[in-house]
Amino acid sequence: MGEFDYIRWIRQQTAAAARVPVGPGDDCAAVTALAGRPILVTTDMLLDGTHFVLSEAGPRRVGRKAMAVNLSDIAAMGGSPFAAFVSVGLPRGRAAELAAELYVGMRELADGFGVTIAGGDTNTWAGGLVVSVTLLGDPGPQGPILRNGAKPGDWLLVTGPLGGSILGKHLDFVPRVREALALQDHARIHAMIDISDGLAADTLHVCEESGCGAVLFGDQVPVADAAHSLTDGKTPLEHALSDGEDFELAFAVDPADGARLVKTQPIPGLTLFHVATFLGEAGLFLETGGSRSSIKPGGYSHPF
Amino acid sequence: MGEFDYIRWIRQQTAAAARVPVGPGDDCAAVTALAGRPILVTTDMLLDGTHFVLSEAGPRRVGRKAMAVNLSDIAAMGGSPFAAFVSVGLPRGRAAELAAELYVGMRELADGFGVTIAGGDTNTWAGGLVVSVTLLGDPGPQGPILRNGAKPGDWLLVTGPLGGSILGKHLDFVPRVREALALQDHARIHAMIDISDGLAADTLHVCEESGCGAVLFGDQVPVADAAHSLTDGKTPLEHALSDGEDFELAFAVDPADGARLVKTQPIPGLTLFHVATFLGEAGLFLETGGSRSSIKPGGYSHPF
Repeated sequence: MGEFDYIRWIRQQTAAAARVPVGPGDDCAAVTALAGRPILVTTDMLLDGTHFVLSEAGPRRVGRKAMAVNLSDIAAMGGSPFAAFVSVGLPRGRAAELAAELYVGMRELADGFGVTIAGGDTNTWAGGLVVSVTLLGDPGPQGPILRNGAKPGDWLLVTGPLGGSILGKHLDFVPRVREALALQDHARIHAMIDISDGLAADTLHVCEESGCGAVLFGDQVPVADAAHSLTDGKTPLEHALSDGEDFELAFAVDPADGARLVKTQPIPGLTLFHVATFLGEAGLFLETGGSRSSIKPGGYSHPF
Repeated sequence: MGEFDYIRWIRQQTAAAARVPVGPGDDCAAVTALAGRPILVTTDMLLDGTHFVLSEAGPRRVGRKAMAVNLSDIAAMGGSPFAAFVSVGLPRGRAAELAAELYVGMRELADGFGVTIAGGDTNTWAGGLVVSVTLLGDPGPQGPILRNGAKPGDWLLVTGPLGGSILGKHLDFVPRVREALALQDHARIHAMIDISDGLAADTLHVCEESGCGAVLFGDQVPVADAAHSLTDGKTPLEHALSDGEDFELAFAVDPADGARLVKTQPIPGLTLFHVATFLGEAGLFLETGGSRSSIKPGGYSHPF
């Protein structure tokens, strides 16, 4: 199998889709927007040794994760995905095996979320595995939900327990696309983000964009079992606050809506937790056992 | 400088654009389509050692090329580009320097073609430099021009001399976006492709999509000066037929339109050459000195 055989194979795997009038195999694909609506666009690149370890995860889970992290970004805007474009840099020598397995992993999630793999670029090189996905989506019923709409007094809710994702969740999580759409039926969402850098860091991102501060309630942050399993000297709460790649959603709502959502838990299978309240003053604080202190997020930032 | 400083810097460099209601810095960007028109999407990944040699080209020319190859794909559809998404994998240790220079190189072409860099993903790793660009565009006046519309008897024209691009043109070419738009004022274009795999291989791509064959006229193929400079045993014509990454356009038109275009040369600064005619029978042929023989394209295919 060579590059062109692979492209031919992918075209055979690609069903016609109404939103993709031109699919894989030409110089460009063509997609259609919904009338009068913008298109959401996100792109994420995964690199061997940074976002996964190929020898441990295997190519299928890498492909799955490459699709999942992009789906999570669409979820974080409250949107609905429809088309993906996939570029890969394959290590020479095992390119054919990797390409096929990556594609299977990507299709697993793509099919589950109604996404057509509409194009891409296939390359080989002497380096490690690289997978870059660009995902297109439609805004949900509340339009694109940005990071900049949180108001002082708003509650920040999260969609699940946090911390320790390195033990497996960072590869195998199910992106919260359906939950983000369902939530829009129950409350006006002021701001939303997916937790990729860590709860504290991502809360700070929302604060900075919204021009406010926030206090995180240490006693209310749901801590994942995995965060208890890690034995690196950090407490489970520290993991829940600072571990990246949890891919739960964190979103700001009016406090009355927040209280109602936490009380009624309206989304089947989903538990919402009130983890922070936004403040008029800038800064990020952590309140535990009744005492409040300023914190600096320890989330992941690529070292330059 | 770290990842977040870089993202902040990019946001400062990004002017508001009507087609990009949500720009860099959120989980997704948002772009708008023209009413009733599809959006063209293309993606290309460049890898150190395969598509460029960083130590020879320098990061600025790599950034420029990453944008240029995608612009060339939009040109090959006859479209007009408007928004780019850029993902990079940066070697740790020199990430800051590379990131800034790559961006300058990309902006050089993006600005020249009215393209907003609307989002991306910045990563570091222990591997070599990877740059992946996804480019969006609008179809031109003739709609998306595919590879599948060539008819037996059509002429295949190319937009410039071919061969030897490895000596520099593969880095420094100007993508034929403007020319592809201008051509649509002068003739109905049946099919179009940019020459990235080599004239013979790309002609065969058009043949396969269009369900026909073609004969290349060896005596009429314009040979670039660079193809004469190479001393690897291949003839200049062989280079013109098989060298990849020339990024000239090859397009099929009705023979009467072809003859008129070649005679009148209606695009200022551009010389069009009649290099092939499509055939009813399958296969790719080369005619030189009055004798015709079947050929197998020697264009570049990534070895799997």
